[in-house]
Amino acid sequence: MNKKKIINDPVYGFITIPYGIIFDLIEHPYFQRLRRIKQLGLTHYVYPGALHTRFHHALGATHLMTQAVEVLRSKDVDITEAEAEAVTIAILLHDIGHGPFSHALEHTIVDVHHEELSLKFMEALNKEFEGKLSLAIEIFIGKYHKKFLHQLVSSQLDMDRLDYLNRDSFFTGVHEGVIGYDRIIKMLSVSEGELVVEEKGIYSVEKFLVSRRLMYWQVYLHKTVLSAEQTLIRILERMKELTQAGHDLKVSGSLRFFLYENDANKLLENYARLDDFDIIMAIKELTNHEDYVLSFLSKGIIHRRLLKIKLQNEPFNRDHINEVRHKTEKKHPIEKKDIKYLVFEGKEAISSYSNSEEIKILFKSGKVLPVSKCSDHGIEPRTAMKHYICYPI
Amino acid sequence: MNKKKIINDPVYGFITIPYGIIFDLIEHPYFQRLRRIKQLGLTHYVYPGALHTRFHHALGATHLMTQAVEVLRSKDVDITEAEAEAVTIAILLHDIGHGPFSHALEHTIVDVHHEELSLKFMEALNKEFEGKLSLAIEIFIGKYHKKFLHQLVSSQLDMDRLDYLNRDSFFTGVHEGVIGYDRIIKMLSVSEGELVVEEKGIYSVEKFLVSRRLMYWQVYLHKTVLSAEQTLIRILERMKELTQAGHDLKVSGSLRFFLYENDANKLLENYARLDDFDIIMAIKELTNHEDYVLSFLSKGIIHRRLLKIKLQNEPFNRDHINEVRHKTEKKHPIEKKDIKYLVFEGKEAISSYSNSEEIKILFKSGKVLPVSKCSDHGIEPRTAMKHYICYPI
Amino acid sequence: MNKKKIINDPVYGFITIPYGIIFDLIEHPYFQRLRRIKQLGLTHYVYPGALHTRFHHALGATHLMTQAVEVLRSKDVDITEAEAEAVTIAILLHDIGHGPFSHALEHTIVDVHHEELSLKFMEALNKEFEGKLSLAIEIFIGKYHKKFLHQLVSSQLDMDRLDYLNRDSFFTGVHEGVIGYDRIIKMLSVSEGELVVEEKGIYSVEKFLVSRRLMYWQVYLHKTVLSAEQTLIRILERMKELTQAGHDLKVSGSLRFFLYENDANKLLENYARLDDFDIIMAIKELTNHEDYVLSFLSKGIIHRRLLKIKLQNEPFNRDHINEVRHKTEKKHPIEKKDIKYLVFEGKEAISSYSNSEEIKILFKSGKVLPVSKCSDHGIEPRTAMKHYICYPI
Amino acid sequence: MNKKKIINDPVYGFITIPYGIIFDLIEHPYFQRLRRIKQLGLTHYVYPGALHTRFHHALGATHLMTQAVEVLRSKDVDITEAEAEAVTIAILLHDIGHGPFSHALEHTIVDVHHEELSLKFMEALNKEFEGKLSLAIEIFIGKYHKKFLHQLVSSQLDMDRLDYLNRDSFFTGVHEGVIGYDRIIKMLSVSEGELVVEEKGIYSVEKFLVSRRLMYWQVYLHKTVLSAEQTLIRILERMKELTQAGHDLKVSGSLRFFLYENDANKLLENYARLDDFDIIMAIKELTNHEDYVLSFLSKGIIHRRLLKIKLQNEPFNRDHINEVRHKTEKKHPIEKKDIKYLVFEGKEAISSYSNSEEIKILFKSGKVLPVSKCSDHGIEPRTAMKHYICYPI
Repeated sequence: MNKKKIINDPVYGFITIPYGIIFDLIEHPYFQRLRRIKQLGLTHYVYPGALHTRFHHALGATHLMTQAVEVLRSKDVDITEAEAEAVTIAILLHDIGHGPFSHALEHTIVDVHHEELSLKFMEALNKEFEGKLSLAIEIFIGKYHKKFLHQLVSSQLDMDRLDYLNRDSFFTGVHEGVIGYDRIIKMLSVSEGELVVEEKGIYSVEKFLVSRRLMYWQVYLHKTVLSAEQTLIRILERMKELTQAGHDLKVSGSLRFFLYENDANKLLENYARLDDFDIIMAIKELTNHEDYVLSFLSKGIIHRRLLKIKLQNEPFNRDHINEVRHKTEKKHPIEKKDIKYLVFEGKEAISSYSNSEEIKILFKSGKVLPVSKCSDHGIEPRTAMKHYICYPI
Repeated sequence: MNKKKIINDPVYGFITIPYGIIFDLIEHPYFQRLRRIKQLGLTHYVYPGALHTRFHHALGATHLMTQAVEVLRSKDVDITEAEAEAVTIAILLHDIGHGPFSHALEHTIVDVHHEELSLKFMEALNKEFEGKLSLAIEIFIGKYHKKFLHQLVSSQLDMDRLDYLNRDSFFTGVHEGVIGYDRIIKMLSVSEGELVVEEKGIYSVEKFLVSRRLMYWQVYLHKTVLSAEQTLIRILERMKELTQAGHDLKVSGSLRFFLYENDANKLLENYARLDDFDIIMAIKELTNHEDYVLSFLSKGIIHRRLLKIKLQNEPFNRDHINEVRHKTEKKHPIEKKDIKYLVFEGKEAISSYSNSEEIKILFKSGKVLPVSKCSDHGIEPRTAMKHYICYPI
Repeated sequence: MNKKKIINDPVYGFITIPYGIIFDLIEHPYFQRLRRIKQLGLTHYVYPGALHTRFHHALGATHLMTQAVEVLRSKDVDITEAEAEAVTIAILLHDIGHGPFSHALEHTIVDVHHEELSLKFMEALNKEFEGKLSLAIEIFIGKYHKKFLHQLVSSQLDMDRLDYLNRDSFFTGVHEGVIGYDRIIKMLSVSEGELVVEEKGIYSVEKFLVSRRLMYWQVYLHKTVLSAEQTLIRILERMKELTQAGHDLKVSGSLRFFLYENDANKLLENYARLDDFDIIMAIKELTNHEDYVLSFLSKGIIHRRLLKIKLQNEPFNRDHINEVRHKTEKKHPIEKKDIKYLVFEGKEAISSYSNSEEIKILFKSGKVLPVSKCSDHGIEPRTAMKHYICYPI
Repeated sequence: MNKKKIINDPVYGFITIPYGIIFDLIEHPYFQRLRRIKQLGLTHYVYPGALHTRFHHALGATHLMTQAVEVLRSKDVDITEAEAEAVTIAILLHDIGHGPFSHALEHTIVDVHHEELSLKFMEALNKEFEGKLSLAIEIFIGKYHKKFLHQLVSSQLDMDRLDYLNRDSFFTGVHEGVIGYDRIIKMLSVSEGELVVEEKGIYSVEKFLVSRRLMYWQVYLHKTVLSAEQTLIRILERMKELTQAGHDLKVSGSLRFFLYENDANKLLENYARLDDFDIIMAIKELTNHEDYVLSFLSKGIIHRRLLKIKLQNEPFNRDHINEVRHKTEKKHPIEKKDIKYLVFEGKEAISSYSNSEEIKILFKSGKVLPVSKCSDHGIEPRTAMKHYICYPI
């Protein structure tokens, strides 16, 4: 078969599959499954274009990796053919452990973190591919001696972030989030084994950090999205509660596994069959369920009649919360103990930039400094916290 | 509630909801359902970005309608407020009767054409909205005396086509399909009650027709998409065959209705709950079904291991087809009568331009001519036919 | 004549001329002259696409003004027809006083600042147009009682800045400078007579400030551009020196006026004929001049063999400068007193944001705060200074 | 010096200079001169963004050549390093012989065709560069045995056309003219020594031909541009007439050479100094000339008060022309013999596609056919003719 495929990508124009093994991995059902997992969960309820999948993102990040390797080699950074292939595999598979609505599922019915699952998938694939992924796995887990290869896959300026910020901006239509990914890549270099950005790229890095922050407030933590995702979590929790109480819910085979069985030995096999369709289909069926909580919240999701959400910088006043609960209890036929499913509060924090492993700038003089030390703009690690409360209108 | 919503659209930047009733219609579950129906079915198997929905397309066409009304009014075409609202409602709802994978379903388990269903939905909504959609319906079915209003909704140059060509180009990344929708709209006018394009817009119209043709060959009838969609049809046919033979398939409530019950009186109610999720979820469950045909074809769709497809201008030779069948029978454990599910042929025709109701050009002199009579480029109604055969590799 | 013109703009798609008087003003030779004045002077030596003119920028800013007026009116801000027309005229003409390479000329052979000249041009046009520009002038100079109208023309978030940042990003290809002008405009409002941005637009404002800063460092003060512009200043100074010493230089009629005559009464008339062509043509002819300084620097500009430039945060060391001068004196046949034309230093300051008249944010509560007080990102007025030295290689 | 330059191009993002010699050629004054020659002459009078230069186009075509070479090599087409460099040089310099407003000058004051001049420039550069351009010249003039290399530089689908159509669309804002240059390049191949397009690229080729035609009518032969360019020709003719009659016109040194001297031996040297600035500056000075024809036409150009133009498919009626002349004579103080400068007619022909050396399509079967034989769309060589008449309003 001709493995020199070209894929149309509205974001980058054309993506070329760089290696035969990349082609084969893409063809694998584990990877094809990512076609059925949206990158941004329920965000399309606010930004209707945001339907792009983890499949598409993984291809995009792979495309950027090819470019980064080319740029680094042109600057005489030594990257062998085997390493180039391995780092490309690593980025292709970096998110393969993501499930549908990861955030919601990991808080409710799946106990394993998606990064751990990515590794499990890679190891399973490594067996099937007779050890050809070993180097990629070493790079992925940060055990390989050339640290910059791992940093290309996972750091504050990795190909993952460059692609997702770019792609999420593109498909949401939030053009202000667009980053100069091409310029940043052209400015990449390696100094003392670590990934650095050349001095001339400093403004692009600053811009990247600001865009990232803007995307957080405007997209990732948009209050309507937050309301929808928190509701999804409540639905999953309620499903768990009912199944544990012995109720039989009409769900798909794979979702059934996570609700009823959850045997660690069969986890991967079942996880590999779980996607957005299992979750949304289950919720659709629940809109008619006799349990008021389930049908009320499910209708909310399916018909996009979402819980009202309020956001503020300080925690909500206890009295206010109680008042809201009280009102809700009167209007909805639910037991007192179940009010937590209809009225709930929480908080979200955003770290605009972490100083634990900083982006490094390489000056013409050869000096390397963390970006927070050399920007005249004031990049400081900074965390913002928002409190929210959700309740029926 | 504030109904002056602005929606981010990667295609047009911002879409403003022009009327309160448009806002209310969008909020209705009938319309929200379109969020779960992809505009291009399985096309994303070739163009991974093509995940946009009929919901998004309807909003886009509504946006273009607002512009068209504004342009026409600026040229002293008389459009009352009531007409402006009605024509906007008509375009918003023009595709509301679409189901999941319409083409496939309408050939198998749904007997009603989507345009007929659109009308049924509009009538149902008209009741709910106490007659406020009556004028929109009149325009939609072409009964209103101002013919150009209907033509804005449905003709060879309507807002539907302008948006879908534009949007499909955008999300597939086939930039060559991009059309000068903005220029065409600026050039719209009305002459003797009919929608026309001013002389200066003639090249844009030609370009539009060529882009449309390119989109047909490169996207809508892409051979891989064809293979996938034909396979989907075979799966649905097989499901129907088995259910009629008394088998019990694990499907959603709404899909069950169409497979087992199909009572005309409950059609709309069940159709209003049917979307991509019912179909894909059913196919996912069928990958483990004991029927070889169903599990084989379903795995093909879910893991994207599609039937091989060959395309040519002439019908395929009978001997060749028989040979392919023969080979397939040997390799697959199926009965002879079921070979039609694994090996099948067919044809697709494209009319690049129809001369039944032509696009009209308005010359400065006041003269109006059909575009085929005034282009020096040779726009002739022309139909191209392609024959295909699909079979397992 | 049909004054309903539509102009193709690669940046915004289509620009519609909103009023007959705008059409007439565009047609006037004073305004047509802006077609021959590049917005970014010699910046195209670094960014070859940056050839756009002040003419194009003025049209773009006018386009944005039309949108801003529409948005404000939709929020029930009272703007009469006369005011709408006037504020549009004011933005159209806000830069009409710009000459070729304004920065360079205003430091050398033209004594009047371009803003003063803009006003003179407007007054001259007001006479020709029989007083129809009076209100526009009032708004332009900030004398009109509705302060927000002036702020739309001239403030830290005026239509001038929105267009030039956007346009300069576009034509330089520095996509990172792109701002969410459309979103910012949609978020504009008026509170207590002043222009404000609604709360939801705060991230777009932050993004705008960062983009502006990025454009300063990456484009407006790009070191190669700085070298070219400083060289241009030296050429003009040398021309002035020689003409005052009685030399006869081969220059155009209008340039001759500024070098030899400079009679305040004839200033406007001559200035109205001066553009990029007079300056570049003069320099081209000077490449063959017998004066070494003039021919050396002119060849530098024409053949793009620019003086080397070094940039740093601190002033250059006196000894270092003297050493460079010394070396240059040895290599070039010039008198000691003229070394300042070949070796020179200077500094450039950038205020990323000024707190003298801040951008104001309007909260849902009705409260209005300056952006520096409500961003959690740390927008502080901040001035960065760079020192440079230029010398022959 | 670091010759690994990256240039920002709004059209392609980033252009990388592929070879040291390309860098050196770009630095040469012969090439830098192209910075002062607009690609589309006076077209910016209609499309204000169309100010891009032949310099920028040459860089863009060079960028595409790099991509084409890479694609062909990936398909095992043998291209040596020397050939790759040579074909890149050839495309970089293919238009170096263009002067300002080539069309106008070549019909009036310059007797040599720009292609001939390109060759002369290349030969002069070859001397300076000690023979390093010999292979490039062989390819340029079509003498090299690998024909496809010449076809990449000059054929119906060369990198020149791909870039200029793309670039002209971009800067005019006529988005409909945009072509799928990237897709076409990806589809290039070589069969029997000739450049071909793979079967899958056929729709892109069709689209390219339609876009080209659209650009001709909408941009290159836009009637207002035609009027301006024909007026420019009349001005140059009048200048020539007056100078031959002994008048002394105030023009630049290089323009003087072409008007007065025109010694073939000094042609190249003077041509190398001639650019848009000489022409426009001369016309600016002529706006005050005592000759009515010159000052009238020059004011028309400078203040954009262009002659009215009418276009039609048939030649204009003699009586009509005489009537227009008669009216003009009455209104303007000119001699009867000079009426030809104010009222003139002419015609322009467009060949949408020539069948002399066709674009060839390579089928999977290995068969190669000219595109006109394999498109089902009807690509026929077709020539359209338009007649025009210009006269003062």
